[in-house]
Amino acid sequence: MRVLGIDPGTVRLGYGVVDEVGGVVTMVACGVLSVPPRSPVESRLARLYTEVSAIVTRYHPDEVAIEEPFVAINARTALAVGRAQTVAMLAAANHSLPVYRYLPAQVKQQVTAYGGSGKEQVQEMVKLLLGLAELPRPSDAADALAIALCHLHRRRFSRILSEETEEDL
Amino acid sequence: MRVLGIDPGTVRLGYGVVDEVGGVVTMVACGVLSVPPRSPVESRLARLYTEVSAIVTRYHPDEVAIEEPFVAINARTALAVGRAQTVAMLAAANHSLPVYRYLPAQVKQQVTAYGGSGKEQVQEMVKLLLGLAELPRPSDAADALAIALCHLHRRRFSRILSEETEEDL
Repeated sequence: MRVLGIDPGTVRLGYGVVDEVGGVVTMVACGVLSVPPRSPVESRLARLYTEVSAIVTRYHPDEVAIEEPFVAINARTALAVGRAQTVAMLAAANHSLPVYRYLPAQVKQQVTAYGGSGKEQVQEMVKLLLGLAELPRPSDAADALAIALCHLHRRRFSRILSEETEEDL
Repeated sequence: MRVLGIDPGTVRLGYGVVDEVGGVVTMVACGVLSVPPRSPVESRLARLYTEVSAIVTRYHPDEVAIEEPFVAINARTALAVGRAQTVAMLAAANHSLPVYRYLPAQVKQQVTAYGGSGKEQVQEMVKLLLGLAELPRPSDAADALAIALCHLHRRRFSRILSEETEEDL
């Protein structure tokens, strides 16, 4: 199972690719995509779309996990983050990949088992879970790995739940 | 000059194609695109992208005018409208078309010369300016024509302004 995690931002988009084989998770790649901030918004979105598509074509993930903008903070920021997220969702859908969306608190909860954790705790857990000597930089890349890990954890939990339900029947 | 106007919504996307030749504006086409509301958001966005691309390929507009979500009302709605708008912008940009964005108040102001006009006044002006016997239905299609007309008016005004500036030099 290979998951592409995406942390959409207004200026940069973090991505992280994680493999899970027999319960062991390893990092395949991570990084950030950025587009020139002075170009028109539609050009930036088109470039982002091309670059996310290239990541999908290069790493062939089975599923894509994308962070959902937290609308309560600032509507204008939510809208801008929403644009980057939309482009990422579209690139995944146009490659026929299933897309899962997680709120920031869900990512924290799945990765650190506590929704109120700070950014630093999440990043330490990413380092620990993936057995990395150094935390990936910039932080957007580490955040994208956290989103991919969140999805793998959630998946495993859903599988256990559905197995239990089957036993109950 | 052919303009494609787009009124992005959460459930339906209105489009209107308007030609301007020698100061005379005529309607070429208008309608709405809708996607099954129960399918996953990424599937809806992918379908919307395909359908907007088909409109662009069919009518070959020179420029695209898209309504901008008004973020102050409701952040959640703004985010959903923003997704539809993002897909429309991306479809235009991927066909190398320039994109112009207008706030609802700008559309009202350009079409009726008064920003505080009601929806009905805007629609009456669309009917009058395009010499239509009947107002296009549903209203999303008429709204998209208003956005295309707003862009044509704004363009003409910008051209006059830049000509004046050239004379001043």
